[in-house]
Amino acid sequence: MSLNSEIISVGTEIILGNILNTHSKFLSESLAALGINVYYHTAVGDNDIRFKSILKTALERSDMVFITGGLGPTTDDITKETVCEVLGISAHYDEQIGNELKAFFERGGKVMTDNNLKQAYVPEGAIVLNNDKGTAPGFIIENGDKCVILLPGPPRELVPMFYKSVKPYLIKKSSEVIASKSLYVYGIGESALEEKIEDLVASKSPTVALYAKTGQVLIRVTAKAKTEKEANTLIEGMIKKLYDRLDSLIYGVDIISMPNAVVSLLSSQNKTVATAESCTGGLLASQITDISGASKVFEMGAVTYANRIKELILGVSEKTLQTYGAVSYQTACEMALGLIKKSKADYAISITGIAGPTGGSEEKPVGTVYICVAHDNKCWCERCFFARYQNERDYIRESACLRALNMLRLTIIRPELYNENYKEYIG
Amino acid sequence: MSLNSEIISVGTEIILGNILNTHSKFLSESLAALGINVYYHTAVGDNDIRFKSILKTALERSDMVFITGGLGPTTDDITKETVCEVLGISAHYDEQIGNELKAFFERGGKVMTDNNLKQAYVPEGAIVLNNDKGTAPGFIIENGDKCVILLPGPPRELVPMFYKSVKPYLIKKSSEVIASKSLYVYGIGESALEEKIEDLVASKSPTVALYAKTGQVLIRVTAKAKTEKEANTLIEGMIKKLYDRLDSLIYGVDIISMPNAVVSLLSSQNKTVATAESCTGGLLASQITDISGASKVFEMGAVTYANRIKELILGVSEKTLQTYGAVSYQTACEMALGLIKKSKADYAISITGIAGPTGGSEEKPVGTVYICVAHDNKCWCERCFFARYQNERDYIRESACLRALNMLRLTIIRPELYNENYKEYIG
Repeated sequence: MSLNSEIISVGTEIILGNILNTHSKFLSESLAALGINVYYHTAVGDNDIRFKSILKTALERSDMVFITGGLGPTTDDITKETVCEVLGISAHYDEQIGNELKAFFERGGKVMTDNNLKQAYVPEGAIVLNNDKGTAPGFIIENGDKCVILLPGPPRELVPMFYKSVKPYLIKKSSEVIASKSLYVYGIGESALEEKIEDLVASKSPTVALYAKTGQVLIRVTAKAKTEKEANTLIEGMIKKLYDRLDSLIYGVDIISMPNAVVSLLSSQNKTVATAESCTGGLLASQITDISGASKVFEMGAVTYANRIKELILGVSEKTLQTYGAVSYQTACEMALGLIKKSKADYAISITGIAGPTGGSEEKPVGTVYICVAHDNKCWCERCFFARYQNERDYIRESACLRALNMLRLTIIRPELYNENYKEYIG
Repeated sequence: MSLNSEIISVGTEIILGNILNTHSKFLSESLAALGINVYYHTAVGDNDIRFKSILKTALERSDMVFITGGLGPTTDDITKETVCEVLGISAHYDEQIGNELKAFFERGGKVMTDNNLKQAYVPEGAIVLNNDKGTAPGFIIENGDKCVILLPGPPRELVPMFYKSVKPYLIKKSSEVIASKSLYVYGIGESALEEKIEDLVASKSPTVALYAKTGQVLIRVTAKAKTEKEANTLIEGMIKKLYDRLDSLIYGVDIISMPNAVVSLLSSQNKTVATAESCTGGLLASQITDISGASKVFEMGAVTYANRIKELILGVSEKTLQTYGAVSYQTACEMALGLIKKSKADYAISITGIAGPTGGSEEKPVGTVYICVAHDNKCWCERCFFARYQNERDYIRESACLRALNMLRLTIIRPELYNENYKEYIG
């Protein structure tokens, strides 16, 4: 029998529309993957009367109630107190949590105000969920045939707590095992992808679901079985089918991002990369260096906005800049080749384009970006166009970085195929 | 008397976590600005029993109920039918809407299936809201002292319909105006800030609310009044009090972020900046260049991970790197001073530190970051320590960028105070 659940988000900032309710999406997605039905999302402000009434209704209609937010130290944090009141249980001060709180503030060299100790109170009989990323612990309260799970509001605290403590708890409670793996796909739209794997998407076990992300699609393969081994065997079989169909369009399995995929590829081959960015302004370097261990594969980055700096740091010729402009095939190639020379990296990536909102022309509208990957004194340069709506600076910058990393990835995994893209630059 | 309202989002894709519920945020924000209280958000799947029960509860506790989604042509679109049933009203076929639907499909060269005509049924007495971006019209249904407003699910249909038809309707209904401004604060924690302005946070009109962001706090001042002028006068009075108390801790009013504040400061003073980053790996450059118009104030960025690159691009001396290490006061200063020389920018920022998870030592643990702002051949260099938990690479990188930008901001807005931080670098 599957469990019915609902999610309550407590926080005036949600009700006022100051922040997006991302918790409910995250929890719903995660619970669906565990076979737990979610039937309602409710958001309510930091108001004990309204929250109390919502909570009572939830306890009448659902087996499990997930509550996010309102666990912090301030007076408007009312979640734990109200839950205890509604369930008719008390809370006691936990010495260990109190001491950890004090130690936390000491480590940061800060003075702890007394209101922080509110967070050290534990509801009667609750399982304490340690918070590795913040001060407020979470709680699982089993009460009769109901279960109430309290989680902190900030996503950077909630998400790791869910994976570390809540998910294992839910898996243990469930009679069957649900396992899932995510495949990340770049280079094909969601509809085209769906057509290509229509028969697999129709599969009942394991299920195959598609989720569109900016410029990418995530394929989630989920299997239910009696044992984990059985579930994994089902999943592996489906992943093989997907690889047969999609090949290098898949850039990773259970990998967090394209930069992750590229850094681990470079690392496994002992190769290095350097970046020269104009319109992306350091975003590409930042994405690569965001990955722990990037220092082994990242040689250097240059953010060369001004033409003078493109000449000075990368040795792009003044004549090229004057004749073809900063956003051109020639400039992109000279940026990448100049960077290879300067940095001695195995690969260099250059990006030059128009992220807008100004700077576009008829010939090169906003969204036009030249991306070049240089390798062994040769260049693979592509003219790209990223534009869906007006003024999508972020979208253009993100898309350019993604494409650039994918070009490098393809070169590394299939040199026999992609080396033919690399041409001698003649100018 | 102000109206109480709530928002119901109908859609299984929301409950499954496939899409983010952006409607509720948009409507809440828009309604708050009109002085309409929003007390609840509820999301429910395309299930008439559950939706009916939610709707009944909503009509008991709220004056206005906004319902999004479920107005389309398919069988799982149940919103209009269920609302009519609960309110006990009928719906009639509207010839004009029917003809417009047919014309719409003809224009697109598509065949209209019969189920589309479902969208031409109008609830008894409802005001019809034309949909300029899709096929399903919206409706305002006044029923006794309650008002139910039905809006289409897709944001690109909902948002323009709200502005064109719903907002004017609500303004006509409302007797008071609400206005708010946000102040952004850096350099003080939420609890300490709350203590400093406890009396102001207790104010009833205007209200003062605090929201913690990573390393920052947002203060929102909100006033209700008969006229917009009156509301703004109340807000300005409170902002003055907050400035008297917090002074340069406030880095902006109604400004989106620290990079925004710094870019507009630099721009207003016709000054330029350049960046040299080690542990932040381009994040600082990326944050600055993310702001439209940054090209006027951003000279260049260098991501110098390897020591060899610090020497090559920034002219950091080999001896300094060997004697003091890459993460040191001396290296930070030489990076910034070298960059000023190379880039000719008015200000240069350098960041060198240990973002982890590896690379820490007892003397310089993970989270140790040297930040230097150079100006007029002088340096202001700070040794910072950003660490609360383990493996918080993101947090360390974000915090370092924020601190660096704030150092630059303080120098620009209060040169008389902060110039004394700038020292000749002797090595």
